[in-house]
Amino acid sequence: MFVQGLKCLFCETVYPVRVGYTCPRCGIVGILDVQYDYARIGRILTRRRLAARSDQSHWRYRELLPIGSNAALPALSVGGTPLTSTPALARHVGLAKLFLKDDGRNATGSLKDRASSVGVVKAREKRRPIIACASTGNAASSCAGMAASMGLKSVIFVPERAPEPKVTQLLIFGATVLRVRGSYEDAFQLCQRSCGKWGWYNRNSGINPYLVEGKKTAGLEIGEQLAWEPTDWVAVSVGDGCTVAGVWKGFRELKALGLIPRTPRILGVQAEGAAPVTAAFLSGEPMRPIEPATLADSIAVGVPRNWKRAVLAVRESGGAMINVSDGEILEAMRYTGRLSGIFAEPAAATAVAGLQRAVAEGCVGRRASAVALITGNGLKDVQSARAAAGQPYDIAPDGAALEEILRERKLIE
Amino acid sequence: MFVQGLKCLFCETVYPVRVGYTCPRCGIVGILDVQYDYARIGRILTRRRLAARSDQSHWRYRELLPIGSNAALPALSVGGTPLTSTPALARHVGLAKLFLKDDGRNATGSLKDRASSVGVVKAREKRRPIIACASTGNAASSCAGMAASMGLKSVIFVPERAPEPKVTQLLIFGATVLRVRGSYEDAFQLCQRSCGKWGWYNRNSGINPYLVEGKKTAGLEIGEQLAWEPTDWVAVSVGDGCTVAGVWKGFRELKALGLIPRTPRILGVQAEGAAPVTAAFLSGEPMRPIEPATLADSIAVGVPRNWKRAVLAVRESGGAMINVSDGEILEAMRYTGRLSGIFAEPAAATAVAGLQRAVAEGCVGRRASAVALITGNGLKDVQSARAAAGQPYDIAPDGAALEEILRERKLIE
Repeated sequence: MFVQGLKCLFCETVYPVRVGYTCPRCGIVGILDVQYDYARIGRILTRRRLAARSDQSHWRYRELLPIGSNAALPALSVGGTPLTSTPALARHVGLAKLFLKDDGRNATGSLKDRASSVGVVKAREKRRPIIACASTGNAASSCAGMAASMGLKSVIFVPERAPEPKVTQLLIFGATVLRVRGSYEDAFQLCQRSCGKWGWYNRNSGINPYLVEGKKTAGLEIGEQLAWEPTDWVAVSVGDGCTVAGVWKGFRELKALGLIPRTPRILGVQAEGAAPVTAAFLSGEPMRPIEPATLADSIAVGVPRNWKRAVLAVRESGGAMINVSDGEILEAMRYTGRLSGIFAEPAAATAVAGLQRAVAEGCVGRRASAVALITGNGLKDVQSARAAAGQPYDIAPDGAALEEILRERKLIE
Repeated sequence: MFVQGLKCLFCETVYPVRVGYTCPRCGIVGILDVQYDYARIGRILTRRRLAARSDQSHWRYRELLPIGSNAALPALSVGGTPLTSTPALARHVGLAKLFLKDDGRNATGSLKDRASSVGVVKAREKRRPIIACASTGNAASSCAGMAASMGLKSVIFVPERAPEPKVTQLLIFGATVLRVRGSYEDAFQLCQRSCGKWGWYNRNSGINPYLVEGKKTAGLEIGEQLAWEPTDWVAVSVGDGCTVAGVWKGFRELKALGLIPRTPRILGVQAEGAAPVTAAFLSGEPMRPIEPATLADSIAVGVPRNWKRAVLAVRESGGAMINVSDGEILEAMRYTGRLSGIFAEPAAATAVAGLQRAVAEGCVGRRASAVALITGNGLKDVQSARAAAGQPYDIAPDGAALEEILRERKLIE
């Protein structure tokens, strides 16, 4: 292990790794950040050494993860998701170059597998047979899937509005699923109390310092897949704030290790109806909780636990934060699918929509290059996709109406 | 290109590649099989050369695919899906060793991407701007997604019962979706007529000789991922017959090239309510069309075009064919998810259910090793999964009912 300690992001005290989930002095606002010995890691993780590693999963960066070298890993492969160049989508959005990092290709269909995989490894290490989590969906299904793969039991607290495909995934993975009649916040609080009471391993990424470490591998992979020449921008949708903070940490580490010459700017994108982090970023004031209202359920967070870390990350990157409407999100789902063949869930399409708006507003230049992080698979929320996609044409088996439809679609003259 | 010609599987005549979709002499029953110069390929595709190739997608086997060396490829990555060892599932099914080949991790969530990717490359090569397909779902969404990635237009004919997530995917990918009021057979016939009339590239794998070549890469990958030591059995669900025939061709080629010492036996598995291929296999008589009745929509085929090829493949492998009930399929979805963390769609879980039944009946030995091919992602048909998965527990935010539920689930004493 190359971990040196855990540093409170609030009071900046550094603790030994045995300290617990959050800062003993600051309580739940005292989110802990894992500190590494980068000098030692830098001597091992060179470009050449990485190129020679055959492991294509995110464990190829194990020196930068808070796990022992002999730790048992889940059998499900995590990370190593494709980075796809999408020239037609770049033109549509108004960029010189655009790549999609498709984290919907992870085992359970979202980026959260990166975090959950680290979570189950830590749970096993601490000999906890049960792992628990409160989530709007992706973190939960990922936690349940990784637990199943690792032979752990999972207890999942979901808010009432969690979409059915995500709840179904949980049940298929054998989780005990508790649907809390209330908001995400209610589910979160009940999960916290239960973890305390029964000693379950707590997989809530607003609390647990190790999960964001898993998320940062998305940034590490983007750096390596771009042959160590990052794009000007990397767009990430923002809910709780953990993902954008994690991805940024990945880039900062690549820079610290001398693997990339410069870091990309981060574009943090929120849905208009759930944008407390953007508000805090723009005002410089502390985050004010709101009542979330957006169809992008994965980022419909009213009380983002990691807002401060997200704001700091975007600021440190020289980046920006922007909001988009639900209409823009649905439209982005449609044109992203049509122009790239990648089916993004609403929260994922939010990153693409944000890039389009940022270009239109002049915040991102027309000659810029960018990566949009596709955080989840569109199949996870087909209801929203259906609203975006429209309807098929119903025809009789004799094909009588066919010519008219084909003419309307400009497929025949 | 290492292709030598196209051989009719019915009359055995070999034609030059320009011949068209099916045998000019035998008509639609004259399915053509692509013939390669294995002597030349064998000098290039050695174990060592393959190990040195950095391309992890299925194009790493390009010498064994019917595409030119300079062919434009879709930007979406295809194949290279994980092969995961699942000891807990092996114990449950009654095998010494079991691997899941998770083709639900493909770009559009199913194995069909392997076929469609070859289809769009051929369409581009033949300068056809439109590709068409009739499908119960996976072939369609895969065709539409690959077409989007390649900048082609797609026209998709789906039967009435195609599940909503799959139809939604099509629409998101910008396809012109024609929902035919009738069966798969009606959709198929209308697609055939339309391709003929308007000159669209025909992506129906019962007709087009090139698609099965894409499917065979699942077999090639399994061979390489097992370090060239195949398991005793490979279980594949059977609908139209193309996939099982394709996978078998992959293993046969690996043997012909001297890359594996012996081929695995193929276990072809059909759903009880749609089992004309098993009937033909067992009786030795020609296939008799049936009216399909199974929840596993991807293999609900009443008139399997490639039945003969499937029967020959399973027989040549020294394998067997078996049927499972819809109840067994739902149960396999549940225990596969719980014991491996992989969410399989019904047609995919059919392969696991088949292995369990084959072990129980003594057809597959208890000391045997096997691979089950997970042909599609469970998120593609959440309706069926819901039937398998059961319901979550609804609780109030105060957690009053929690202890009782946890005791029932044996999570606390």
